[in-house]
Order: sequence, then structure tokens, then C-alpha cells
Amino acid sequence: MTGSPRGGILAGMRKLWTKRRSGAGAPPGTLIADPAASPTRIRFVGFGPEELVEETIDDPMAIPSLLERHRIVWVDVTGLRDLEKIRALGEIFGLHPLSLEDVLNVPQRPKHEEYGDHHFIILRQPRAVMPLESEQVSLFLGRGFLLTFQEREGDCLDAVRERLRKGTRIRSEGPEYLAYAVIDAIVDGYFPLLDRYGEVLEELEDRILEGSERSALPRLHDVKRDLLALRRIVWPLREMMAALLRADPPIFPPDVRVYLRDCYDHAVQLMDITETYRDLGASLMELYLSTASNRLNEVMKVLTVIATIFIPLTFIAGVYGMNFDPDVSPWNMPELRWRFGYPLSLALMAVVALLLVIYFKRKDWL
Amino acid sequence: MTGSPRGGILAGMRKLWTKRRSGAGAPPGTLIADPAASPTRIRFVGFGPEELVEETIDDPMAIPSLLERHRIVWVDVTGLRDLEKIRALGEIFGLHPLSLEDVLNVPQRPKHEEYGDHHFIILRQPRAVMPLESEQVSLFLGRGFLLTFQEREGDCLDAVRERLRKGTRIRSEGPEYLAYAVIDAIVDGYFPLLDRYGEVLEELEDRILEGSERSALPRLHDVKRDLLALRRIVWPLREMMAALLRADPPIFPPDVRVYLRDCYDHAVQLMDITETYRDLGASLMELYLSTASNRLNEVMKVLTVIATIFIPLTFIAGVYGMNFDPDVSPWNMPELRWRFGYPLSLALMAVVALLLVIYFKRKDWL
Amino acid sequence: MTGSPRGGILAGMRKLWTKRRSGAGAPPGTLIADPAASPTRIRFVGFGPEELVEETIDDPMAIPSLLERHRIVWVDVTGLRDLEKIRALGEIFGLHPLSLEDVLNVPQRPKHEEYGDHHFIILRQPRAVMPLESEQVSLFLGRGFLLTFQEREGDCLDAVRERLRKGTRIRSEGPEYLAYAVIDAIVDGYFPLLDRYGEVLEELEDRILEGSERSALPRLHDVKRDLLALRRIVWPLREMMAALLRADPPIFPPDVRVYLRDCYDHAVQLMDITETYRDLGASLMELYLSTASNRLNEVMKVLTVIATIFIPLTFIAGVYGMNFDPDVSPWNMPELRWRFGYPLSLALMAVVALLLVIYFKRKDWL
Amino acid sequence: MTGSPRGGILAGMRKLWTKRRSGAGAPPGTLIADPAASPTRIRFVGFGPEELVEETIDDPMAIPSLLERHRIVWVDVTGLRDLEKIRALGEIFGLHPLSLEDVLNVPQRPKHEEYGDHHFIILRQPRAVMPLESEQVSLFLGRGFLLTFQEREGDCLDAVRERLRKGTRIRSEGPEYLAYAVIDAIVDGYFPLLDRYGEVLEELEDRILEGSERSALPRLHDVKRDLLALRRIVWPLREMMAALLRADPPIFPPDVRVYLRDCYDHAVQLMDITETYRDLGASLMELYLSTASNRLNEVMKVLTVIATIFIPLTFIAGVYGMNFDPDVSPWNMPELRWRFGYPLSLALMAVVALLLVIYFKRKDWL
Amino acid sequence: MTGSPRGGILAGMRKLWTKRRSGAGAPPGTLIADPAASPTRIRFVGFGPEELVEETIDDPMAIPSLLERHRIVWVDVTGLRDLEKIRALGEIFGLHPLSLEDVLNVPQRPKHEEYGDHHFIILRQPRAVMPLESEQVSLFLGRGFLLTFQEREGDCLDAVRERLRKGTRIRSEGPEYLAYAVIDAIVDGYFPLLDRYGEVLEELEDRILEGSERSALPRLHDVKRDLLALRRIVWPLREMMAALLRADPPIFPPDVRVYLRDCYDHAVQLMDITETYRDLGASLMELYLSTASNRLNEVMKVLTVIATIFIPLTFIAGVYGMNFDPDVSPWNMPELRWRFGYPLSLALMAVVALLLVIYFKRKDWL
Repeated sequence: MTGSPRGGILAGMRKLWTKRRSGAGAPPGTLIADPAASPTRIRFVGFGPEELVEETIDDPMAIPSLLERHRIVWVDVTGLRDLEKIRALGEIFGLHPLSLEDVLNVPQRPKHEEYGDHHFIILRQPRAVMPLESEQVSLFLGRGFLLTFQEREGDCLDAVRERLRKGTRIRSEGPEYLAYAVIDAIVDGYFPLLDRYGEVLEELEDRILEGSERSALPRLHDVKRDLLALRRIVWPLREMMAALLRADPPIFPPDVRVYLRDCYDHAVQLMDITETYRDLGASLMELYLSTASNRLNEVMKVLTVIATIFIPLTFIAGVYGMNFDPDVSPWNMPELRWRFGYPLSLALMAVVALLLVIYFKRKDWL
Repeated sequence: MTGSPRGGILAGMRKLWTKRRSGAGAPPGTLIADPAASPTRIRFVGFGPEELVEETIDDPMAIPSLLERHRIVWVDVTGLRDLEKIRALGEIFGLHPLSLEDVLNVPQRPKHEEYGDHHFIILRQPRAVMPLESEQVSLFLGRGFLLTFQEREGDCLDAVRERLRKGTRIRSEGPEYLAYAVIDAIVDGYFPLLDRYGEVLEELEDRILEGSERSALPRLHDVKRDLLALRRIVWPLREMMAALLRADPPIFPPDVRVYLRDCYDHAVQLMDITETYRDLGASLMELYLSTASNRLNEVMKVLTVIATIFIPLTFIAGVYGMNFDPDVSPWNMPELRWRFGYPLSLALMAVVALLLVIYFKRKDWL
Repeated sequence: MTGSPRGGILAGMRKLWTKRRSGAGAPPGTLIADPAASPTRIRFVGFGPEELVEETIDDPMAIPSLLERHRIVWVDVTGLRDLEKIRALGEIFGLHPLSLEDVLNVPQRPKHEEYGDHHFIILRQPRAVMPLESEQVSLFLGRGFLLTFQEREGDCLDAVRERLRKGTRIRSEGPEYLAYAVIDAIVDGYFPLLDRYGEVLEELEDRILEGSERSALPRLHDVKRDLLALRRIVWPLREMMAALLRADPPIFPPDVRVYLRDCYDHAVQLMDITETYRDLGASLMELYLSTASNRLNEVMKVLTVIATIFIPLTFIAGVYGMNFDPDVSPWNMPELRWRFGYPLSLALMAVVALLLVIYFKRKDWL
Repeated sequence: MTGSPRGGILAGMRKLWTKRRSGAGAPPGTLIADPAASPTRIRFVGFGPEELVEETIDDPMAIPSLLERHRIVWVDVTGLRDLEKIRALGEIFGLHPLSLEDVLNVPQRPKHEEYGDHHFIILRQPRAVMPLESEQVSLFLGRGFLLTFQEREGDCLDAVRERLRKGTRIRSEGPEYLAYAVIDAIVDGYFPLLDRYGEVLEELEDRILEGSERSALPRLHDVKRDLLALRRIVWPLREMMAALLRADPPIFPPDVRVYLRDCYDHAVQLMDITETYRDLGASLMELYLSTASNRLNEVMKVLTVIATIFIPLTFIAGVYGMNFDPDVSPWNMPELRWRFGYPLSLALMAVVALLLVIYFKRKDWL
Repeated sequence: MTGSPRGGILAGMRKLWTKRRSGAGAPPGTLIADPAASPTRIRFVGFGPEELVEETIDDPMAIPSLLERHRIVWVDVTGLRDLEKIRALGEIFGLHPLSLEDVLNVPQRPKHEEYGDHHFIILRQPRAVMPLESEQVSLFLGRGFLLTFQEREGDCLDAVRERLRKGTRIRSEGPEYLAYAVIDAIVDGYFPLLDRYGEVLEELEDRILEGSERSALPRLHDVKRDLLALRRIVWPLREMMAALLRADPPIFPPDVRVYLRDCYDHAVQLMDITETYRDLGASLMELYLSTASNRLNEVMKVLTVIATIFIPLTFIAGVYGMNFDPDVSPWNMPELRWRFGYPLSLALMAVVALLLVIYFKRKDWL
């Protein structure tokens, strides 16, 4: 999902039905590749407690013979452009056309489905923040194999690969443990993202409280929108993991379930933090609006005070600027002929100004 | 539902009880046709794995004999004006008067009801956007037949008809698969609509962030109202599909249920996107209001600054415009007689203006 | 419930405890009549497939003998003033004192209660809109009889009476079908009300979008308050009907339940529309506030522009209105002696005005 | 709970932990009396169908002998200061120390707990409104006795005492019926309170719609805060009563449960009205804000219009107040020498004013 | 969790994944100590009804022999820096690596997990307010032992230690009662905090109603954010305690469960008060905004009135300041030659001012 600078969530969502629309009415299970997708690369990892074979495979037909040679196999597919390869993989592993359709028609919501002898799990791994980008990871977990599909090169699974190479416990366990490790790595991959949003929120809070808040608005909007999108990812993720744990008969052996429960706790925490951040975002928006409104009030008050003080003064000056002629009659502006007319008029102005200042001070407007 | 340019949702809703009111107190199951409805046209499609017969039927009484000749029959009725034909169809297929009443009294909420030997399903298919228009599709699914009622010509089922003609798997399955195909086509028909709303939201977001936001308000209101209406359609649609999947004994054979589950996923996604768009709409409204308020603040500040700078200057000019006569007494405006009185007064004004500018700069109001 | 022009919901709610307060501490089941209630009138309807007797009864003691003569009996009581009659009816039909208390202590929430051999159902029928007025209808459904209590003359049950007179199916069914017919008529009676609110909302929307929105505020508030009150009626109504349908053992025979389910659908639709209208009302309030704020901004801008253009001009005029005497020194306002002093000063003003206009145009404030 | 004029809810809530804090870390069940509590008074009521003994007891040790002499006993304790008496009662009736702690550590949430042979019920009775004050009533319901604790003299139970004295049905029933009567009296005691809040809301609505809304704000805030507090009382009250009705084995005999169900209905109605009032309060706040904002707009418009009309006029007057000397050159303000210069200038001003008035009329700003 | 003056909640949340990130991809159960954590100190408390031994232990290896000597053992660990000691404790008590990971990876959400022979409980104890700081307390409850981990020295458990020393009932009960006492002390530790927030809210309410509300905004924001954070702690705390009570088979013996139920009630009350405070905070924000807006309106009105009264007066003065020459023609400002020209002009101004004042009084703007 390559999001435009703005509109990440909208762009991502719209991509879905642009594709689906073209296939509308087609029989279900019809596979349509996105010509803009990355080229397909198949990485094969076969392992057992004592061995580990990693190789990049060009022809999926080589897999059946490899499958026999290894206790556990991880076929890691990157890029969804090459329809033939994907279809071949589907046949080799006996995947349902509908699930392959879901693999290709990204983005899908995180979900779990059972297909007789294998399980189909859809996750989203984070890619970038501001705007949020995420990418679908599809897992097929069967007897002795784990098949993963990702949209592009580059992921958060390198640590899993490293653990496989180092030959820790992961090599002695079944594909369920491997699936757990993949899910765990993906779930944990969201924490740095949230960290980033937390940083931005902290920064925005500081800026709003300091008063340099103008530019905060579009960024706050961006964060809020990203968190909205994140919530739409994390919520079904958590639900899906709860379903994995509750499944009867159980999908994962008891010792792996202990770990998955831990991973589920992390997903709950993700949800928790996302919600807290959303609440904080709403609270910051409120703070921003109040602060901006307070600032306006401040400016308005100064205007009021200055204008209101000068308006009567200007009026007095205006009166003595009238051209009534004291020569014509003694009633006509005799002040102009007074010895201290001018100083008295200035004094009058000063008194009026002073009274107004006192009034405004009393009213606490100054 | 021919909506007025504005008020699509209200117009649609009000249409319901305008009709119902006239029938209030009538015994339940009394059929009343809307004279403004489209004329009734019956399209008959009979098919089996090897055959396909399509014809337009004028007299429903021709159907019983056709029913015997085909393994599976799809009677596709368009237009709800001709009460006689609809009543005849009800008798031929043994439909309950209450369900026929629901067929005619559009719009109804999406729902599913079981009537002994057949199932009655109400859906809404989208028609147009901005304002949102949708149309009721009523399905009767029985042994060997599918009966559909639509309000007007033109629908999103052409792809289903095409698949029937092409003779894919759809011809070998039962009427349940056909019903699934119809439901699937209708559900998928909402995605282009959502795409349109997504586009509008993206456009509105751009316009609001750019600042040319005035005209955004009525459009934003329209989108929000349409999404509100859409939610009222999609929510019961999803519930109804969940009920179809949960029904015990099952309505659909296992292999069709896998597909229906997929279709249910799409309905969930519809709901998900609708909710996200609603949240985005609310967020955009907030952004709009804040942006508009910021703009006003900007204007206010400039006014404040310009006015507040000139008000004291004008006052000074006013003072020296007073007509106190320096001839009368040396106390009366001696400045007027100063050699540099005028330049000094201008200098005074400049100093005052400068001080105010510095003050405003400091306060960050400029 | 005769509501004051404003405060319909409050007045109705307060009426309840004004009465209850007087009876507080009284033993439960003590009947207290409201002296302001309408006089009690008892209409007796006895019927069977072939017969129908309608008469107004003065002495409730005449009922036991009438009961024996008719297969099914509907005793329709209007007005709650005459305590003796109501108590007598309670004894004749074996009603529990608590339920009779609920009949008199209007308004109660819609609810359903079972008392051994009869069922007690409370509904509210609509009376008027803007402000919303509704009235309690209490139903006692027992073996062979239906007993209804209404607060005042005039109701939405005339269609039911008409159907009884016309001798349709309703005469061949039991009292449960009659009860269904009454409930159905009451539920359907809400639709014209909603239609009215829909009309008002449409009208308000038009007025707000057109800009003549001032007077829209109190009306919008009235609609919102009425919809709030309506929701408090419709929500328990729907719940009560769901309880009637779920009751185990069933209250209604299977064929009547099909109809009641249909009626329940209408109640759900009522709820749905009420909620949609409430959402629309909130949306209109938001639109109203934004529109009003936009209008203010518009006015503010014009003020800003006009004031800000004239303030410097007036200042310039003020400067040349100063009385510095060019005779005293060549430094004092030599412009006054220039040949083209006046035209130049006017030109200066025009240039300043022009620059400001250009500036405001650029800023898009004009 | 003696609330300060403002801060009733906060004061009440804070009182709780001020006390609890002092006892933090103390073993559970340690009884600590509040020295500011009212002095303890024990009223003993023993009764049967034919007898009634009321007396005030000083030494709780007199109770065991009294218990034997009466079929049913109600020990009504007022004031929580005298720890010894309360502890003695606890021993006589076999109460759990934790429940006695709850009796003393007021305020507690309404709740129900079962302790083997007796039931412990906490309720709150209303005391005063604006600000809302309520008081804890603790009930212990056991075989043949009801023990009630109240914080202060004065309650809403006088009607119950009156009914006991009058010897109605209440004397023939067991302590469960007495407990019901007490609960019913307390629940009904909330209705006059709600009536008061209803009155205030009605009054506020009138004042806001009339426009004299300034002083409405703090009162509206008070009502909203009180309703918030009331909701926190009524919600657990309703839950507690539902639990009492659901309890298995049942606490109340069937005939009393019919009455309790009625009382539960009242609690539901309380909740319903409280929620409606809260919604109304929120709606009034919105109305208030809009009305205040409208009023400001009105004032702003008048300012705009008057200022904008006079600013150009003043400018024109300023121009002709400039001191350019027509003697110096014919270009300098020749208007001053025109025969009709002055009337023409006044006419110019009138024309400008008229044009502006027309413009503002057109814009609908006047 | 050492929070910065601002950003307590954000800082605390971000700390979590800063740590987790470094360990991302590591095998689960890998223990990583935070180098900034407090040094680890182990306090050993062994007791029975008749004995109590308290000592600080340096080498965890001393514990196994101590375990045998005491009926019940409480190992109280403070500071999480010393990984070796913690790992050793894990081995001695047979703790699962994942739970030890949770002990170190603070902060975790309050939760309860069962590991065969022991229970793992995570709580948070409050540390400071404004900003809110809390600290993780991890409990391991097994046969005969309670193991607690805290982040730093200083806690709210001193009362528990005191009770152990005093030899009350706590010494005769099992480790479950001890665990209850610890949980109870922690839950009760939140009440003084809430008291503090209650005080601040009361103070803020007073200040807002009095009008000195400017500085209230950032504090109100702080309180709201803290209450948001508190809710995120208290909600899972309550859930966790409900789970502890519901656990089947029960974790706590019946007599301890009575106490735990009491403690659960306190947690519910915590939740209740937190929610009430949040609602109050929102209500205060609304009140603040309305009050601030009202104040602005007040200022605006005074400006309007003063400006609008003086603007026409200034205009009149401006007119008679024009230099049209009465000598040139009798049409030119004859008023200047009138005997009472000046008094009349002043009278005109007074009349205009008076009319405006009356107008504003009528409009209720003054």
C-alpha cells in the first residue's frame, strides 16, 4: 500500500474495491493479479533440530521434492504479481481458491479461517508511519509447513530468520511455533509505530500548551486519522488472536498456546494504547481549540481596550475641531477663547482615559 | 426510490409510511400497489448443467409448466405495479401474503425469514450516490427455484446472468448457489459507491486543508447524511447474512456456505469502511470548523493590528485639528506655532506606530 | 397527557410522580383516580364468526351475563375517572390490584407481565406531534376476552372496529388475534408522526442550507426533544414485543405469531427511523452551528475590509485637518500651500485604498 | 452527607476515602466510627397480625428478650456514632464484621450480599436536591427480623410506620414484606426529587428560549452534575433489585416478589427518567450555547452595520475638514467655495449611507 | 515510571516499547534488565501463628533452606536491575520464563495467569499524582509462599508488614490471605489519589465559576489526561479481580473470598469514582468553554455599545469640522453662524447618544 502523502487510509481502502470492481460478477475464486504488484519471489526454508536449508526458488514445482526432505518447511513468498507461481503453490499445498483470492485482493481485514487440513490467517504488518502504511501478510499453516505471502520485499521477520539460523528452540518445535514466532514478530512490529505516534502526540501537546499551535492542526488531524486506521487494523487482529486461542479443537499445542497467550496480551496492549492515544488525540484537539479560542479572546480584549479608550478621546478632539465661530456669539465654543482651553481639554481627555482604564482594570479586562 | 437532489434519505424513509398510512387498519397481508411503481416484467430463466432458457413472460400462468421442464428456475420480476401478476406468482410459489406485502411496501430493512418450505430474504441494492439511492431486492429461495423482485429495470445482476450464459459452475449447482451469486453481486455492488464517497472525502480533505473550505460544508453534510443512511442499510445486511450462516438447520449446503462466508466477510468490510468513513467525516467536520475558526482569527488579528495602530494616530491628528486659538493665550496649542510643530507631530505618530508594531510583534500577533 | 405548548416530555414525566407522590407510602395496589381524568365509558363488543354486538355499558355488572353469550369479548374502556367501574371490572376479570394501579398511574413504560391466567400489556398510542403527546393503552388478554383501557376518547383503533364490523377473518380468530390487531394499529399509528418529523427535518435542512436559519434553532430543539421522548417510548415497545414473541410457553398461537413478528418488524423499523432522525437532528444542529458561524465570518470579513480600508484614509484626512500654520514656518504643513496639494492628497488616499484592496484580494478575504 | 452548597457530589465522594484512608492497612472488618456522625438511637418495633409494640431502646442487650416475645421485629437504628451499640447489635444478630464495616463506611454503592442466614442490602435514600444529598440505608434481612441503619434522623419511612400502626396487611406478612415496603418507600422517595429537577429543567429551557440565559449556565451545570450523581446511585440500585429478583434460591416468597417486581419497574423508570433528563440537560446546554452565540452574532451585526455606515461618512467629513487653502490654488478644495458645497457634501453622505443600507438589506444583514 | 512533569502517561507508555523494541525478535522468555532500574533488594519474611522472621537476603540461594523452616514465606523483591538474582528466584520457585519477562518488562496491564502450581498476578500501585505515576507489582502465589516484585523502594504495603508484626489473624492464615492483604492495601492506596483529583476538580470548578478561569485550562487538561490513564489501570484491575473471584477451581479459600469480594467492591468503587470524575472533567471543560465564551460576549457588548454610541457623535463633530466657508454662500454651514450653533450641536449629540442608549437598553445589550 503506497499511500499518497495525505490520504493514506483512504488510498488504501479505495485500492481494494478498485480491484474488486473489475472482478465484480466474476465467479468467486477467480484470481486476478494486480499488474502494479511486486514481482513474486519464493524463499524456501527447510529445517529440523539439526539442519537448516535456505534457498530462493524459481519454479514452485521444485517444492514437492523439497517438502519430503525436510521435517518442517517455511515457504516465504514476496510479491503478488506472478499469478502462475501463486496458483502452482495453491495446488501443491491444496489451498482453497477463495483463500488465494483473499491473498491477492489486498487489503483484507485480519481474520482466521479453517480449511479442513490447514488454517488460513490474515495479518497486517506495519510499514511506515505518518501516513500509516501497512501490508497484508497471509499465513497458511498446515501439517509440517508454513506458507506466508507478503506484498513487498522488506518485513519485520528478519529476527525470526535469525533465530532459525542460530538454531534455538524454534528449530525443534513444529510449524505452529514458527507461525507463532511470525505472528509475534508482526504484533511486536507495531510497538515502534505507536512509539512514534506517542512522540508526535507529546510534541503536539507541548506545542499547543506553549501556544505555537497554528501548525499543530493538520498534524493532529493526520495523527488522529492514522490512529483511526490503526484501530481498524488492531481491533480485528486482537479478535482474530482470541479466536485462534479459543479454537476447538485447539490449533496450537498447549506449550505454544502459552506463548500465543502472551502474544495475545501484546495485541490487547496494542489496542489499549491505540485507544488511549485516540482519547489523547481527542483531548488535544479540545485543548487546541480552547487555546486558540483563548488567544483570540486575548487579542479581542486588547483591541477592545485600546479602541474603547481612544474612541471618546477622538470624539473630544473632534468637538474642539468644529468650526463654530466664537466671534459670532459668546455661546459658540467659548472654550476656544479660554486662557487654559487647550490644557483643560487635554486634561479632560486624560481624565476620561484614566476612568476607562480603571473601569477595565476593575472588570479584569486588562 | 427517486430521491430529490437533497433529502434522499428522508424522502426514501417518508415514502414508506405515506403508503403504509393509506393501508393502516387494513387486514395484514392486504396487497396495495404503488401506482407510481414501474410496470411489472417477468423474466424467466430455467437452467441445468447443459441447458439454459431465457424468456420474458407475460402471463405468470405459463410458469407452472415451465417449472416442470427445468431443473432450476430463476424468476426475475422487475417493477411492482401489476398487482395481479405478483399475486399470481405468490400463489404459484406458495408465498405468504405477509412476505408479498413486504415485497410491495418498499423500503423494508434487510432481513431473513423462514416460511416452512421457502426462505424470504430482503436486500437493498445501491442505485446512485450523492444522494444515495437504493432499491429493495426481495428473494424467495425454495426447492428448485429462486424468485427475485426488484423495483425498477437496471441492476447489478448482469454479471450473474452472464455467468449463467457462459455455463460455468453456477449451472451445476442448486438454487442456493444462485441465491449466493445474487447476494454476492449485490454486496459487491456497494464497493464502487464507497469508492465514490472515499473520493469525495479525499477531495474535501484536500480542499479543507488548502483553505478553500467554504463550499465544503454542504457537501460534507451530504456525505455524512448519505453515510448515515448507508450504515442503516449495511448494518442489518450484515446481521441478516450472519443469521443466514448461523441458521439451524442450515439453509445452504456446506460448499456454498464457504462462499457465503466469504460474502459475509465482504459485508463486514462494507460495515468497517462505512464506519471508518463516518469517523473520517466527523473528523473532517472538526477540521473544517477549526480551520474556519483559525481563518477568522487570522482576519481578526489583522483588523486588530491595523485598527489599533491607526486609532491613536488618528487621535493625535484630531488633537492638532482642534481650533483652540494660539492667539488667545500662549497655553493654547503652542505646538501650532512651533517651527517644527508639524514634522514633530508626524514623528510622534511614527514613534507611536512603531511602538505598537513592536508590541504586536512581541505578542506574536503579527 | 395534555402537554403545554413547550415542555411536552417534561410535563408528561412530571405528571407521573405528582400523582404517585400523593400515594407514597400507601399500601401497594391502592387505586387512586386522577380527578382531572376523562369520565369512564365502557364499550362492549362481543363477536363470533357470524355475529357482532356493540353496545355502550353503564353498569359493569351487566358484563358477566354478556360474557356467557359471546364467544369472544372486547371490553374497551375510555377515561380513567370512575374508580368504582374500574374496580368492578377488575373483580369481574380477576385482575391483580398492582396491574390496575399501573392502568391508573399513567404514564407507565410499555411492558408485558404475566398473571397466571391473563396477560397484562402496556402500550402507548401517539396523540399529537410538536410537542409529542402520547397516551397509555393497557391491554388485558385472557381466555375469550380482551380488555383495553385508554385515557381519553379518540384513538387509532377505528380501523380495527371497522374490520370487526365487516366480518373479515378477525371474527373467526381468538382474542389473541384481536390483541395483535390492536397492537398493530397502535404501532402503525406512529408512522404518520414520524412522517411529520421527517417533513419538519427536511424543511429545517432546506432552511439552514438556504441561510434563513435563525428561527430554525428553537424548532430543531423541539424536534430533537420530541425524538428523544419518542425513543423512550419506542425502545421499550420494541423490547416488550420481543418479549411477547419469545415468551415460553407461547402467548400467541403460531399463525398469529407470524403476524406479530411482522408487527415486531414494524416496531424495529420505528426504532430505526427514530434513531436515524435523531442522528439527522444532531447533524443538522452541527450544520446549523457551522452555517451560523460561517455567516458571522462573512459579516466580520466585510466589516474588517471596509473598516480597514477607511481607517488609514480617515487618518490621512485627519493629518491634513491639523491646524499647524504654514505661515509660521515653511516646515509646517507645506502641502497645504502646494498647487496640487488637495488632488495629491486625494490621490494618496486612492493609492492606499487600492493597495489595501489588492492585499485583501490576495489574501482571499474579499 | 452534608454537602457544601457547591460540590455535593465531590464532597460526598471524598468523604469516603478520607475515612477509609485513616483505616488503610487496618485488618478488614475493623470498625471505626466517624466522630462527626449523629448519635445512635435504636427504635424497636415488634409486631404480629394482632399486636404492635414500638419503643426506643437504650441498651441493645434488651433486644434478645424482646426478640422472643414478637413474631416479627424491626430494629431501626439511626445515627452511626455509638460504636459499642452497633457492635452489640452485630453480635446479637450474628452479622459479619465486613458488612458492619460497610454500614459505617458510608457512602457505599447500592448492593446486595448474602451471608448464610441473612441478607445484607445497601440502599441510598434521597435527602435534598440542588445540590443532591443522599444517605445510606443498610438493611439486614434475616429470619423474623429486619435491621435497618440510617445515617441521620428523618427519613422517608414514616408511611411504612403508619401502615404498621394501622394494622393493614403488612402486619400479617413476614419480614420480607416489611423489607419490600422499606425498599419501595425509598425508591418512591426519588420521584419528588426528579420532579424538582424536571421543574428546574423546564424553567431553564424557558429562560434559555426567552433569551435571559446568562444566569442559566451555572444552574444548568449544577443540574447536570446532580443528575450525573443521581445516575451513579440509581444504576446500581436497579442492578441490585434485579439481583434480588433473580436470586436463586429466591429471597422473597412468590407473592412478595410480585410487589418487588413492581418496585423494580419503578427503579427502571427512575433510571429512564434520569437518563432522559441527562439527555435533556445536554440538549439544553447545546441550545444555550447556540442561543448565546446567536445573540452575539446579532450584536456583532448591529455593530458592523452602524460602524460600516458611519466610517465612510466620517471619512468624507474628514476630507472636507482638511485645511488645504482654496486661496493658494484653484485645485485646492474648490468645493469649499461652491455655492452649494455644504449641502452637496451632506447629500453625498446621505447617498453613501443609503447605498450601504440597501447593500446590507440585500445581504440580509439588517 | 519516572514521568516528566508533563507527559506522564505518554512517557510511561513509551517506556514499554522502547525496551521491547530492543528485544524484538529475541526468543520469548529472554530476560533483559533495564540498566536504569533500581538495584535489587530481597526481603524475606517467614511466619506462622507464633513466629515472625524478617531479614534482608543477599544471596537468593539462601532461600531454599529458609523455606523449609517457616510455614509461610513472603519474599518481597524491590528493584529489577539484578538479573541474576531474579533468575535465581525464578528457578527456586519454578516460575515460567514468560511470567518473569512480564515482571521485568514493565509496565504491563493488570492481569491474572495460572501456571499449574502457582498463580501470577500483575497489579499497579499508585506512586504520585499530577502527573499520575504508578508502578508495577507482580505477585506469585504458590503453596506456602508469596513472591512480590516491585520496581522501587517505598510502597503502600507497610500496613501489611505492621499487621504481620503485630501478630493479628494474618499470621494464622495461609499465603492466600497474605496475597489478599497485599492486593487490598494496593487497591486502597488509590483512594487518596482520587481524593487529590477530587480536590483539584473542586478547586477548578470554583475557579471557573468565579471567572478566574484562564489558568484552569492546562490543569484541567492534566487532570483529564491523568484520569484517562487511571481508567486504563483501574479497568483491567477490576476485570482481573473479577477473574480471581470467578476462577474455577477457586484460588482462594471461602473465608478469604469473602474478604476478596469486599476488595473487589472497592475496585468497582474506584472505577465508579474514576468514571464520575471523568464525566465531571468533561462537564467542567464544557463549563469552562461556555464561561470563557460568555466573558468574551460581555466584552464584545461593551465595545459595541461604547463604539456604537461614539461613532455617530464623532461623525457629527466631523461634519461641523468641515471647512465650508459660510462667507462664500449662505448655504454653506449656516449653523456655524447661528447664535446657539454650538450648544445646539452638543444637544444633537446628546440626543443621539440618549436614543442609542435607550435602544441598547431595550435590546437588553447594556
